[in-house]
Amino acid sequence: MDNCIFCKIAKGDIPVKKLYEDEQVVAFNDVNPQAPTHVLVIPHTHIATLNDLTHDNQYLIGHMATVAAKIAKDVGHAENGYRLVMNCNQDGGQSVFHIHMHLLSGRQMEWPPG
Amino acid sequence: MDNCIFCKIAKGDIPVKKLYEDEQVVAFNDVNPQAPTHVLVIPHTHIATLNDLTHDNQYLIGHMATVAAKIAKDVGHAENGYRLVMNCNQDGGQSVFHIHMHLLSGRQMEWPPG
Repeated sequence: MDNCIFCKIAKGDIPVKKLYEDEQVVAFNDVNPQAPTHVLVIPHTHIATLNDLTHDNQYLIGHMATVAAKIAKDVGHAENGYRLVMNCNQDGGQSVFHIHMHLLSGRQMEWPPG
Repeated sequence: MDNCIFCKIAKGDIPVKKLYEDEQVVAFNDVNPQAPTHVLVIPHTHIATLNDLTHDNQYLIGHMATVAAKIAKDVGHAENGYRLVMNCNQDGGQSVFHIHMHLLSGRQMEWPPG
């Protein structure tokens, strides 16, 4: 997707400090952090929203969660805890239409979640 | 897990209105809803926290997200949007130590997510 900022980040066309990368996903810091650790995990594959998940790519979300949990452990926040968030469309607060998982940690997260 | 309320719900020992069920997961309404639609998707298998995901069960999270997206569609909120949230341990705000995914929809979700 030529105009997708997350595709450009995944391909390396926009340079970011990658915290993790494998064949399926890339992780990097959110530019507007809402917690001491605020990381985004995105797939290399362009999938616009959670509504576009198919049987073939549903397991990607599981991998994204596993990577987020690994990063939480790497930064020393696994035991204290963290929150994972995915937003879909306007009501969900989705701002970039390439699915991404937010990892937030390093502070007490409040309820409700937005 | 004898004392786990979500294990009891999954087994049917505590009756709830199940919105969805298959061999892997059960979905039902949160008892303290934070949005017009606030559903929990839980696995039948007892997994205490996201830190306890293993290579073998990581894909469960993908299935939980797919089920949540299906429920959002069923209630007519897929296009307007929704938020998926998973909490781990104290800082994440986890209250029941059997992993669960929150689906929140039917209102504008705010930022930050708690």
